[in-house]
Amino acid sequence: MNQNLKITIIGAGSSYTPELIEGLIKRNHELPIGELWLVDIKDGAEKVRIIGELTRRMLAKNGMSHISVHVSLDRKPALKDADFVCSQFRAGCLEGRIRDERIALKYGMIGQETNGLGGFANACRTIPIALEICREMEELCPDAWLLNFTNPSGMVTEAILKHTKVKAVGLCNVPVIMQKGIAEILGADEQDFVLQVAGLNHFIWARQVLHNGQDKLQNVVDAMLSGNDPLVPQNIPKFEWPSELLRNMGMIPCAYLRYYYTSEDIMEQEQQEASGEGTRGEVVKAMERRLFDIYQNPELSEKPKELEKRGGQYYSEAACELMSSIYNDKRSIMHVNTRNNGTIQGLPDDCTVEVSSMITKSGPVPLSVAPFPSDTLRLIQVLKEFESLTVEAAVTGNRNVAHRALILNPLVTTGSILEKALEETIQANLDYMPQFR
Amino acid sequence: MNQNLKITIIGAGSSYTPELIEGLIKRNHELPIGELWLVDIKDGAEKVRIIGELTRRMLAKNGMSHISVHVSLDRKPALKDADFVCSQFRAGCLEGRIRDERIALKYGMIGQETNGLGGFANACRTIPIALEICREMEELCPDAWLLNFTNPSGMVTEAILKHTKVKAVGLCNVPVIMQKGIAEILGADEQDFVLQVAGLNHFIWARQVLHNGQDKLQNVVDAMLSGNDPLVPQNIPKFEWPSELLRNMGMIPCAYLRYYYTSEDIMEQEQQEASGEGTRGEVVKAMERRLFDIYQNPELSEKPKELEKRGGQYYSEAACELMSSIYNDKRSIMHVNTRNNGTIQGLPDDCTVEVSSMITKSGPVPLSVAPFPSDTLRLIQVLKEFESLTVEAAVTGNRNVAHRALILNPLVTTGSILEKALEETIQANLDYMPQFR
Amino acid sequence: MNQNLKITIIGAGSSYTPELIEGLIKRNHELPIGELWLVDIKDGAEKVRIIGELTRRMLAKNGMSHISVHVSLDRKPALKDADFVCSQFRAGCLEGRIRDERIALKYGMIGQETNGLGGFANACRTIPIALEICREMEELCPDAWLLNFTNPSGMVTEAILKHTKVKAVGLCNVPVIMQKGIAEILGADEQDFVLQVAGLNHFIWARQVLHNGQDKLQNVVDAMLSGNDPLVPQNIPKFEWPSELLRNMGMIPCAYLRYYYTSEDIMEQEQQEASGEGTRGEVVKAMERRLFDIYQNPELSEKPKELEKRGGQYYSEAACELMSSIYNDKRSIMHVNTRNNGTIQGLPDDCTVEVSSMITKSGPVPLSVAPFPSDTLRLIQVLKEFESLTVEAAVTGNRNVAHRALILNPLVTTGSILEKALEETIQANLDYMPQFR
Amino acid sequence: MNQNLKITIIGAGSSYTPELIEGLIKRNHELPIGELWLVDIKDGAEKVRIIGELTRRMLAKNGMSHISVHVSLDRKPALKDADFVCSQFRAGCLEGRIRDERIALKYGMIGQETNGLGGFANACRTIPIALEICREMEELCPDAWLLNFTNPSGMVTEAILKHTKVKAVGLCNVPVIMQKGIAEILGADEQDFVLQVAGLNHFIWARQVLHNGQDKLQNVVDAMLSGNDPLVPQNIPKFEWPSELLRNMGMIPCAYLRYYYTSEDIMEQEQQEASGEGTRGEVVKAMERRLFDIYQNPELSEKPKELEKRGGQYYSEAACELMSSIYNDKRSIMHVNTRNNGTIQGLPDDCTVEVSSMITKSGPVPLSVAPFPSDTLRLIQVLKEFESLTVEAAVTGNRNVAHRALILNPLVTTGSILEKALEETIQANLDYMPQFR
Repeated sequence: MNQNLKITIIGAGSSYTPELIEGLIKRNHELPIGELWLVDIKDGAEKVRIIGELTRRMLAKNGMSHISVHVSLDRKPALKDADFVCSQFRAGCLEGRIRDERIALKYGMIGQETNGLGGFANACRTIPIALEICREMEELCPDAWLLNFTNPSGMVTEAILKHTKVKAVGLCNVPVIMQKGIAEILGADEQDFVLQVAGLNHFIWARQVLHNGQDKLQNVVDAMLSGNDPLVPQNIPKFEWPSELLRNMGMIPCAYLRYYYTSEDIMEQEQQEASGEGTRGEVVKAMERRLFDIYQNPELSEKPKELEKRGGQYYSEAACELMSSIYNDKRSIMHVNTRNNGTIQGLPDDCTVEVSSMITKSGPVPLSVAPFPSDTLRLIQVLKEFESLTVEAAVTGNRNVAHRALILNPLVTTGSILEKALEETIQANLDYMPQFR
Repeated sequence: MNQNLKITIIGAGSSYTPELIEGLIKRNHELPIGELWLVDIKDGAEKVRIIGELTRRMLAKNGMSHISVHVSLDRKPALKDADFVCSQFRAGCLEGRIRDERIALKYGMIGQETNGLGGFANACRTIPIALEICREMEELCPDAWLLNFTNPSGMVTEAILKHTKVKAVGLCNVPVIMQKGIAEILGADEQDFVLQVAGLNHFIWARQVLHNGQDKLQNVVDAMLSGNDPLVPQNIPKFEWPSELLRNMGMIPCAYLRYYYTSEDIMEQEQQEASGEGTRGEVVKAMERRLFDIYQNPELSEKPKELEKRGGQYYSEAACELMSSIYNDKRSIMHVNTRNNGTIQGLPDDCTVEVSSMITKSGPVPLSVAPFPSDTLRLIQVLKEFESLTVEAAVTGNRNVAHRALILNPLVTTGSILEKALEETIQANLDYMPQFR
Repeated sequence: MNQNLKITIIGAGSSYTPELIEGLIKRNHELPIGELWLVDIKDGAEKVRIIGELTRRMLAKNGMSHISVHVSLDRKPALKDADFVCSQFRAGCLEGRIRDERIALKYGMIGQETNGLGGFANACRTIPIALEICREMEELCPDAWLLNFTNPSGMVTEAILKHTKVKAVGLCNVPVIMQKGIAEILGADEQDFVLQVAGLNHFIWARQVLHNGQDKLQNVVDAMLSGNDPLVPQNIPKFEWPSELLRNMGMIPCAYLRYYYTSEDIMEQEQQEASGEGTRGEVVKAMERRLFDIYQNPELSEKPKELEKRGGQYYSEAACELMSSIYNDKRSIMHVNTRNNGTIQGLPDDCTVEVSSMITKSGPVPLSVAPFPSDTLRLIQVLKEFESLTVEAAVTGNRNVAHRALILNPLVTTGSILEKALEETIQANLDYMPQFR
Repeated sequence: MNQNLKITIIGAGSSYTPELIEGLIKRNHELPIGELWLVDIKDGAEKVRIIGELTRRMLAKNGMSHISVHVSLDRKPALKDADFVCSQFRAGCLEGRIRDERIALKYGMIGQETNGLGGFANACRTIPIALEICREMEELCPDAWLLNFTNPSGMVTEAILKHTKVKAVGLCNVPVIMQKGIAEILGADEQDFVLQVAGLNHFIWARQVLHNGQDKLQNVVDAMLSGNDPLVPQNIPKFEWPSELLRNMGMIPCAYLRYYYTSEDIMEQEQQEASGEGTRGEVVKAMERRLFDIYQNPELSEKPKELEKRGGQYYSEAACELMSSIYNDKRSIMHVNTRNNGTIQGLPDDCTVEVSSMITKSGPVPLSVAPFPSDTLRLIQVLKEFESLTVEAAVTGNRNVAHRALILNPLVTTGSILEKALEETIQANLDYMPQFR
């Protein structure tokens, strides 16, 4: 890698991008960037233009105007010889996400962008585009690292690792929030303890919290149960864990596991929200509109406070730290989506898992994961089977495979209702899911 | 084994018993019975008395009055030196079953006696009694074979095989009905083909239908899809299988798998029934009352036609054939619940599975099962984990284990609703579940 | 299958053939044969002619001259529309076997036709021919069953099942001898007990001896240890089992397992024999010469007594019983080489194992095998890996794969000596191993 | 842990100890030692006295006389409140090692202290003592870390982790030598690349050599094959690897794997040495005598050059780096023996493996190991089974288990010769193996 890194952001018209820019500015001393390419599709032209302007102002304010900023609707020049590619696009935009939520709720199921019926729909829209980008990367920047934030991050990463040669790492802010929340509970620096997580994207458990020669996991659980649970991202509802369950688990479930352990409560809240302030997608859409109003302000030259409510906090931190760890062979421990390859026993070698890994210049080397308790393992295996079949359905457009995938998902209701919901999902998304035609 | 077999029936006050008696009469030439002991508890005293009288009339009519018939409310003399013990009791009687159904429905879940929340409750009521009986058998008739029909048959058999030394075989009429339905479709005798099933009780798939040198499985599927599905027992609702799913499965799911593949449709029908003619338990209760009216008729000396609607058809056939196969070392292929011991890959050795087995004088020797497709395997593994945790909860009375069991069950809703439903289940059954006190 | 079965014997010039003919004559009532094709290669022309004459005399003596006997050096007409094909050829004839023995002994290793370096050489000579025959069968008699006796039977069967569509079953007399020896010990008919064996060809253990409602395995062990061991074939040396080992094993090892459990003793005996009466191959060669002198006698019209010393006793019984079981859907329990497919846990699904199976018109359905003790499982896994790599080497001619295979075999010495022995083996057999050129 | 660390060395009379002292002196800035306890048994009183004097001179020369040095023949005060315990004793002294070598060679087997028959004997002598020490540690210093160098290090560590609560880590210089040899080949610093090894003690393979963003494993192999193989410890014979084997392996076998891949060559060399300069044990014994002559010199106050020929080079480095990594939570990657716990797929969770691990204040966290090629896995599984059965035999004194262990070892010959060799081993060591009485 050269000293003038070329970093390309796909889906740069996202409201998150200023956070990423801020992170790159902070790490300027260890990540010597030469070019920054902001790419989006035509529908995002206005948004990416606004982001581009804001980026230039932010760089200027920090005396980094030597970095050239390119805004482009054409992916190819942006990918050519890139060192790092950050993928954060949303196939079908927020409209797609909202449609997923509404269809699921209509059929009495949880509507969410990474799991259940909504996660399935999102994967089927997204994976064909992700693979197209990767095929371009194989040709234009075969040595580049792809950092995938595009949701559903685990399934998208699995599709890429199974079907292309791109060096991809999937990222998520959920384990970053866990790391920060645990630091708060322990009253320690994030670097002072080793948090080991394992599972699938949005489906992980903390397995160890090694601090000062001891495993402090149970102390963290106690703190969480005594009303202080800072491990929950802003974009998912706050709920109490069933206390006996949590106390006896010997692991810390990530906040998204509430979808599985307390699904009926989530369902009720979603239905309330949907008939009140709107679904999460609808709320985010309104928030985005407000954020872009702020971004347009020519006086603004830093990330605005309002972005923090957006939900994706620390995405940037994960991305910048990963780029730096690879570039500098830092061997720090990060929580990433990567090929299983024997890390979690009881899952196929070629599937993708989310596990704490040592990050080297050659990419992630996962830490070994102690065998899961058998009931938790069964849950993980079922979810992974759902994910792998969904990837297969997204690639092949085979409806039978799609149906088999959905039957396995605990958030999906089976029967004639599912047949209808699946067909409606496909028809409503047909422009983005040509594979099902 | 001697030539004067002593056969003991626990829960003989069941309305099914006349079918069993009929079966024993038919097999008189190969199963030389000396004594027949009909056992029940005080609450069933009147019913078992009626059954006893009917039994004597049936034997007399067939010139078999040399068989001594004993009606007893005391298990010990009945078990002493027994050769075969048939267990068909229902812990908490039909009232318990109905309560299970109503509690589940109240919380928006499927209410059924062998799966979901109802299956859990039934297991927790039944297993302590089953283990008590087995401890008596260890002492009074250590060489006897126990034929367990008591539901939930798979979990009860697992509890017995894990916690006692009794030689137990679990039986169910579901695979018998499949065998007969397939015979009808093929236009063949039941002995003319080898049906191999595998899975868990009420959760099996036919894996092979070997007939005349070919595997006719897909022919059977075609017939089932063309409107002729004789594989459904009378006591579960008729539904269409999603045709694409069934056609591509490469296996034949048993009728009870509708609870998993089409759970919403079952749910709707159960709710309709519950607010109409009553739950299945309520329907059965009314049917039982009518049956006992008929049984009391001193002119009746054979199994009445009305029994066939009761739902348990062919139970008797399974029981009598199993006793004869063991007694005569017949090596016939039967479908039984037995210790896994390597038969189904991916399940623990010590759990109980329902598999086609060669029946010898030493008991069942299972046929080897080809690996399941991975999505089906995941379902089986999750269900078995639910079952094994339920057995553990039933034995220990540990609420946390109970909760972990139920979370895994696809027919159970998670969240605060589950905590309430579990607590109500325990409180409503406290007389039968002292382990949870 | 028609009523005029066509049976084809490949390698019919073998001295064993009269035994097979005798078996077919005995089973005439259940196996209605129309044509018998005796096939061999040019080098065996004289021998197969002699066998053909003897066959005709044997049939005539039994009033079965309606069966047409064809002697042919051309495989194709012989295979055309065959119902059963018995493969018993020896690639490279006895000269090949003797060469294997002598090369192995020269390098200080055990020299034997089915294991160690000799087994490897034999597999590499034989498998290409076996696959050629199977490709002809795919075309000329796709519905025929192939009964493979050709050694090394396990590896040859694995090659066929992995690389062709032929319905092949591998047979061996070792388990037949165990069955008969155990019958002798128990004083019982062979049909009176269920013997279950499992493992690989020439590498099996009896796991159960179910007789009269009990497992008599330990009784058989006691009898073997008290000096009466009728389980040893005539063609392998008699040795005492280390008694403590055998007594505590909980299984009965087949006689060939002496090669692994007492290899040094076997080695010594082989070296003595090699410098005395000759290697086993040399002894057999002399015996064959004498047998063919007898077979030529125009007065001879039955299997001569002398054949019994030859070592392959009961081969015929296995073959004829298998053909009859398939033809008549007898569902008898036989011990055959077939696709593992989940039968023995810890081995790949697609490898071939030797296991007790129920024989139907659709072929073998293996009995489920209880998990092996872990030390025995490790031995089986290593041997199977040797076998599978040997099959791969035999098919591809890859020397590196050959070397990796041999390194795993406990009867093979590693180091520069092995590199020399492997090269000498290949060079000495180059006419039969063109794949290594 | 306090700032005045107490370090206890068991078997301090070893000639290696000066190297360890040198290492502690070098790391003085990061490992603040207060007390150093040198412990040995009566037979080693003179040697440990000499080492104690030398230690004091070495500390004095480096201005570290504030560290108190205690020489003790009583373990208890030495263990009381220790922070780190280094175990490097040799049960039965070099005489025991020599006896092992000579008995093995007498029966035609490789004689070596960590594998084959000699490794078995060594384990059976050593494990009872190691467990005794650990029981004292459980009481006197329950929080201390045990660094085990005592051979056979893998089996001794497994015995400790299975049978005691001591926090033990097994160490070996073999992977350290690999790390240094690879650094030499790459022309890189040891910290500049990540070497990942996996397997069992003296039975490991390098799986990755991550350097500068690439896996340089094949480059290292090429260098090794072109005549430059710096990965071989001084105490095992130099041999050429079979080049085709090494080139196609995709892994780098450790030097000790020559015992398995080229056993006959090793055997020949051992026999030559045994009838020439003596066995390795005899050579070492003479060397030790010379070293102690040097150590006695009151002028000597540093590790003498001659120690380097002794064979255990870098032991000290491994020990000191491990203590420092734990004490300082350094998270460096080291290659240690620890509980498998899912790290290597296909081995039991509770066995001990040698794997590259991140060292934290809470001990080692292994890196995940990619699945091994199946032939290599089979070798590892067989060796581990040998080791685990040996541990069981060492703990229980069960001869049948001992025999079953040895049968599995590829370096052991089976048959009556083995029964004799085992009995002679037990009788010759009876003072050290009371469990076999």
